[in-house]
Amino acid sequence: MSIAIDIERLMARLERLGQIGALPGGGVKRLALSPEDAEGRALVMRWMCDLGLEITTDVIGNCWGIRAGEEDGPPVLMGSHIDTVATGGLYDGSLGVLAGLEVIEALNAADARTRRPVAVAFFTNEEGARFAPDMMGSGVAQGALPLEEMLEVEGIDGVRLRDALAAIDAAGPAPVGALKPHSYLELHIEQGPVLETEELQIGVVTGVQGISWTEITVTGASAHAGTTPMALRHDAGAVAARIAVEAQQIAADHGPPQVATVGRLRVSPDLVNVVPQEAVMTVDLRHTDEATLQKAETRLWRAAQDFARTGGCAITRRTLARFEPVEFDPALVDSVEAAAHARGLGHRRMPSGAGHDAQMFAPNCPSAMIFVPSQDGVSHNIHEYTAPSDIAGGAQVLMDVVCQQAELQDAPEFQTTETGQLP
Amino acid sequence: MSIAIDIERLMARLERLGQIGALPGGGVKRLALSPEDAEGRALVMRWMCDLGLEITTDVIGNCWGIRAGEEDGPPVLMGSHIDTVATGGLYDGSLGVLAGLEVIEALNAADARTRRPVAVAFFTNEEGARFAPDMMGSGVAQGALPLEEMLEVEGIDGVRLRDALAAIDAAGPAPVGALKPHSYLELHIEQGPVLETEELQIGVVTGVQGISWTEITVTGASAHAGTTPMALRHDAGAVAARIAVEAQQIAADHGPPQVATVGRLRVSPDLVNVVPQEAVMTVDLRHTDEATLQKAETRLWRAAQDFARTGGCAITRRTLARFEPVEFDPALVDSVEAAAHARGLGHRRMPSGAGHDAQMFAPNCPSAMIFVPSQDGVSHNIHEYTAPSDIAGGAQVLMDVVCQQAELQDAPEFQTTETGQLP
Repeated sequence: MSIAIDIERLMARLERLGQIGALPGGGVKRLALSPEDAEGRALVMRWMCDLGLEITTDVIGNCWGIRAGEEDGPPVLMGSHIDTVATGGLYDGSLGVLAGLEVIEALNAADARTRRPVAVAFFTNEEGARFAPDMMGSGVAQGALPLEEMLEVEGIDGVRLRDALAAIDAAGPAPVGALKPHSYLELHIEQGPVLETEELQIGVVTGVQGISWTEITVTGASAHAGTTPMALRHDAGAVAARIAVEAQQIAADHGPPQVATVGRLRVSPDLVNVVPQEAVMTVDLRHTDEATLQKAETRLWRAAQDFARTGGCAITRRTLARFEPVEFDPALVDSVEAAAHARGLGHRRMPSGAGHDAQMFAPNCPSAMIFVPSQDGVSHNIHEYTAPSDIAGGAQVLMDVVCQQAELQDAPEFQTTETGQLP
Repeated sequence: MSIAIDIERLMARLERLGQIGALPGGGVKRLALSPEDAEGRALVMRWMCDLGLEITTDVIGNCWGIRAGEEDGPPVLMGSHIDTVATGGLYDGSLGVLAGLEVIEALNAADARTRRPVAVAFFTNEEGARFAPDMMGSGVAQGALPLEEMLEVEGIDGVRLRDALAAIDAAGPAPVGALKPHSYLELHIEQGPVLETEELQIGVVTGVQGISWTEITVTGASAHAGTTPMALRHDAGAVAARIAVEAQQIAADHGPPQVATVGRLRVSPDLVNVVPQEAVMTVDLRHTDEATLQKAETRLWRAAQDFARTGGCAITRRTLARFEPVEFDPALVDSVEAAAHARGLGHRRMPSGAGHDAQMFAPNCPSAMIFVPSQDGVSHNIHEYTAPSDIAGGAQVLMDVVCQQAELQDAPEFQTTETGQLP
């Protein structure tokens, strides 16, 4: 048996929430714990109330609403975030929360009963755009980040998280650890071009890539570009260029899902006729497999040291960020894939290249994610867009997997022979 | 027969001129046609007067003093410049002018007679630090640059050259073309590390390298460093890095005197987790041989276009500067070499990597240059330094070649059997 989501209801909520913090040129700005975030939280909590959910807010402002099941116990949780970056879109985060509301509204409309409770949550400060690190609320809730330390974090505007929470009265009484779901499901936009390029509707997310961010500083000596023979140079820029090419080569040799990016690269003194004395660059390496990621890191650094040695330069590195890969629950991932297949939606397994709240739940309960296509692969951008038909597909897969996880009971109007799970 | 220069007299003049525009932390700032330049010009002209020279100033402020020969006719000219960059040293330019004064003072002191006149000159705005282009005064004097156009050039401070000349009353009545030397000799610091590295005292300069400056702009598309697979990227930074490595490879394949420098390299948006959408870089290629320089340019641009194509990026280029190589007069170069050899000074033939006034004279009369070592290869820097013993060697070679070119006559106190050139 199955229950259909209502795409028009879901799109109306996405548009309504997108009006809060809407930017003049399009897109939205709802930084974590800002007045706009407060308004968004209030709206989503009112919608939770309207659906008859039992609402709980914890000490860092995570908020969840539970629809009772036939039995007590941990809920099947859908969630994501409603904060955005400074020039964000309508879909990143909000989709996962509002699709969760739609799943519950559709269950309500069908008068459906589930064995387990079903819940929907939004987590504080997933973006990390105002307060670092990102995924803060879910990280605190799931024990990956220490609450007291996070409360003291100072935002880009100099406001402490503790005070920002108080300013909009976002914190509630529930302690860390109060949120213990049976399983966790997050619908999210892909934020990349893969699904669109392959003309697929559903990304079956198998995990989150491990991330390694390294800043490398090459120090040589500035010299006259005309009067200094090549053999007497200490060209920091030339060494940096070789490192950048090596990063590309590592990605080529490892093949997908290895990615490598030199996003920052500055040479000084940055003059046309002066051999660069210093180059500072960043290398962003990501892979789903920790051992392979370490292999990439090791190869890059060995090569970088070689290039510096042969180029007569000194070299240092500094780790800016390092996260191990996260693997989602294989059975739950299978369920997502089966649901997409059953709905006739084109799908593929893929890792997430970006971090998500789901990875904070993965160590504690079966967790998985569902991706829908991002037009032109664009996200964190006012031009972020996903077609309603794609959103409908993703929300329906979410519904189908939630019904399975929560054990949907035969409802009067949905007789079926597909399952024998009668109470 | 030979006449010795007096190194103490020369060093005293270098130090005295270096006090004009002296910077608090060392070094000197005497931008072209500035009040400091005016004071420097006045001092050098007074020294010319003291030596009994016949002084001429032309319409762009070039100034020369002639010591009469036994016959009339074009003089053997020694010259360089006394303007400096904003943070210059005591030697760049000034050495060539003041060594010329010393040669003449030594000739005077020896009561020596030469068949041809001997002259010393300083040229306006060699550095190009206030008014572009560089080598302006000598270029105008030798017909390579149009006077009227140069007079309208606006300096970095917004002052036109014409007004800057008037402000310090630097221009004289002599027209363009008034300075027609028999031959031209310029003593200059190397401004590079070759002589010091090879523990040599004299650089026998064979010519000036051709210079090719190109700005290359690579345009790709910014993308998320985590969610965008390598195959779907348009990474402008990665393409730029490959171009920079290719520039190095061209220099390695061509061997000396080919040099290649990527002095400027900027990526945007320059964020650790964003694939660069644009990269702007400069490539400085130099070679003494025009055909080889063109080969380097062609190879680099072909490779750059290939890298852009395979990297899914657009690419454009813009020429920032292009000068063909200059070859000095082979016989005069031989004379410099022979003089260094005769004095027992360690020497080598080498091209000049930087531009000099001498290259403006090369098309019109036999011209050559003499280099002396630069400590640490440093120039255009307050730490610019050349040891007095090296300066003495260079000035003596200058003296010896001038005596040969001007045809030193037997003086009463310098009987010799080395030459039969009696009047």
